[in-house]
Amino acid sequence: MKLSFSKQNLLKGINTVARAVPTHTTMPVLECIFIDASTNQITFTANDTELGISTVTNGTIVEKGTVAINARIFSDIAKKLPDDLIRMETDERNTVTITCGSVVFNIPGQSGEEFPYLPAIAKDKAVTLSQFLLKSLIEQTIFCTAPNDNNKMMQGELFEIRNGVLRIAALDGHRIALRTVALDGTPDDEKVIVPGKTLQEVARILGNDTDSKVDLFFTKNHLMFSFDSTLVVTQLIEGEYFRIQQMINCDYETKVTVSKNDFAGAIDRSTTMIRETERKPIALKIGEDVMEVSANTELGRMNDRIPATVEGEELMIGFNPKFLLDALKVVPDEMVTMYFSGSKRPLFIRDEESSYLYLILPVNMGV
Amino acid sequence: MKLSFSKQNLLKGINTVARAVPTHTTMPVLECIFIDASTNQITFTANDTELGISTVTNGTIVEKGTVAINARIFSDIAKKLPDDLIRMETDERNTVTITCGSVVFNIPGQSGEEFPYLPAIAKDKAVTLSQFLLKSLIEQTIFCTAPNDNNKMMQGELFEIRNGVLRIAALDGHRIALRTVALDGTPDDEKVIVPGKTLQEVARILGNDTDSKVDLFFTKNHLMFSFDSTLVVTQLIEGEYFRIQQMINCDYETKVTVSKNDFAGAIDRSTTMIRETERKPIALKIGEDVMEVSANTELGRMNDRIPATVEGEELMIGFNPKFLLDALKVVPDEMVTMYFSGSKRPLFIRDEESSYLYLILPVNMGV
Repeated sequence: MKLSFSKQNLLKGINTVARAVPTHTTMPVLECIFIDASTNQITFTANDTELGISTVTNGTIVEKGTVAINARIFSDIAKKLPDDLIRMETDERNTVTITCGSVVFNIPGQSGEEFPYLPAIAKDKAVTLSQFLLKSLIEQTIFCTAPNDNNKMMQGELFEIRNGVLRIAALDGHRIALRTVALDGTPDDEKVIVPGKTLQEVARILGNDTDSKVDLFFTKNHLMFSFDSTLVVTQLIEGEYFRIQQMINCDYETKVTVSKNDFAGAIDRSTTMIRETERKPIALKIGEDVMEVSANTELGRMNDRIPATVEGEELMIGFNPKFLLDALKVVPDEMVTMYFSGSKRPLFIRDEESSYLYLILPVNMGV
Repeated sequence: MKLSFSKQNLLKGINTVARAVPTHTTMPVLECIFIDASTNQITFTANDTELGISTVTNGTIVEKGTVAINARIFSDIAKKLPDDLIRMETDERNTVTITCGSVVFNIPGQSGEEFPYLPAIAKDKAVTLSQFLLKSLIEQTIFCTAPNDNNKMMQGELFEIRNGVLRIAALDGHRIALRTVALDGTPDDEKVIVPGKTLQEVARILGNDTDSKVDLFFTKNHLMFSFDSTLVVTQLIEGEYFRIQQMINCDYETKVTVSKNDFAGAIDRSTTMIRETERKPIALKIGEDVMEVSANTELGRMNDRIPATVEGEELMIGFNPKFLLDALKVVPDEMVTMYFSGSKRPLFIRDEESSYLYLILPVNMGV
């Protein structure tokens, strides 16, 4: 095999797939990026068997072939090469020679015969979104997954299509994130649970523009994302997802609208009074046209008064400040509206149409 | 006490002194920043008893007084306050009320009666340098100290003034850094060992311009740095420093001049072939008008050929790549000259006048 790349294209190819390389594995070949230049294009693939990413990389094929190269070393070398034409060549023992200007590397490769190809998924009926929208949907929900929870469901997100509407949900036992978006066309109904790790990687490599599209292909056991020259294939989490709809209701006793930045600033300030090891709650006190944010611990007291538009009952309620901040960080609006039903019942942060909805359980203030 | 500050001035005062606050101490008052507004200026002081920093902070004194406030909490609060006028007030129980716009903090303070003042050092005869120069001298040598070595000497730097010349030296058992600079005026001879931690803090808060000056005042047990509105007082390390002059000689068998950036790039590339846990050396092979940099491990081989101006014997010699990179990073010249005396003897990197000199011991290549 003989290939050549610009540094930029080589790095792009490596960076796109590298995060699908498992950090710990008993199969050494999985620590590799598999380079397939056996046809008339160069494909880089990494595959931890749950998540696989492949991407077509711009370069010149001088002589066709395949090779698998340790991903960490390959990435290290590529980053540190001069910004010049990079030539790559393998010999019959799969030793890879990488040349760039006066620099020569010789590193052991593998034939890649035992490298697991991505599952073949027919590209028949696609669900299409803009890359920007899918990236936003993931970023606005992913923080509510619980990556280390024993409950596998909580490590993933629900992707549900019903009547042409896509709903993405995540929950971790203390809070729920839910995003809803109407799809173009007449997509089939679907209901799958996608691993959070996959979604994080997809969000990382998706573009930021609304013009570029991403196609989703659903099968019984897999979901495939296809965009630009990249394919991401993930296994799905098996099981029945939590019945989120039952946990959500639109009744409320108190409706409060405040500036998102004022509120986030006050919460952030309140955390200076809370030792990280303690997890003390902060208090929201909702009055006639003001919401007070306060914290009171042995470190000291903090109080901030935020102008608010209030409908309904006055209220005092406690929250884990991190949960409030996490939701505020991803709410797209400058003014945020919160719905309360007393100090023991969940808070809902949502827009009028519930295109986004965050449920956060309150914390007993222990007063 | 009643004071007010702009956010910027308050943060500047806190950040200047905060690093002298010890992370672990049995004296709770040392975890504080001591605010002294008992005269007509506001001084912030922190003191871990080895290193003390005080700075005059711009602000308004409405009512004189003093207070000591936990540095971590004070700093956290100041960072997160709105960018508005910040008022600070203490009551008779030393509770500190910090107000900024709608935000109110109440935190416990201490009288600060038991806070240790900085040692009083007479400002009689100063050694004066530009802040930029002192910062450079420290940054060009400090990486050769051994902060965790049992030998206290290696944790510090030699500051020696003889015949109007300041020499700053550091060594860690594998390498030596030496900087020499002629001083203005007729300074007294001095020879002290300054803790590396102090020098790191001084370099951090010194300005970057050549117009601002810093005065050094030497006493038997202390060194004081005085610049802008800040004083840094440090204890000295007791003992006789290593006899560096005996380790240095200017004979050589091979003299090599190469581009610093080419050389550093090649070393950086070579480290991709070295596992962090292994500390294998890299090889320099000096030929007629080329220096080859290479690494050969079970991860693979790397070779780069750098154009070089060579005088004297050809040579093959091994080095810890980190030691070479550390020195190259701080060498101010674009072309760097190295002096070798065979594969078992130290490398010297220095300019013609030896205004900087780095000695690095070679590593047995085990061939």
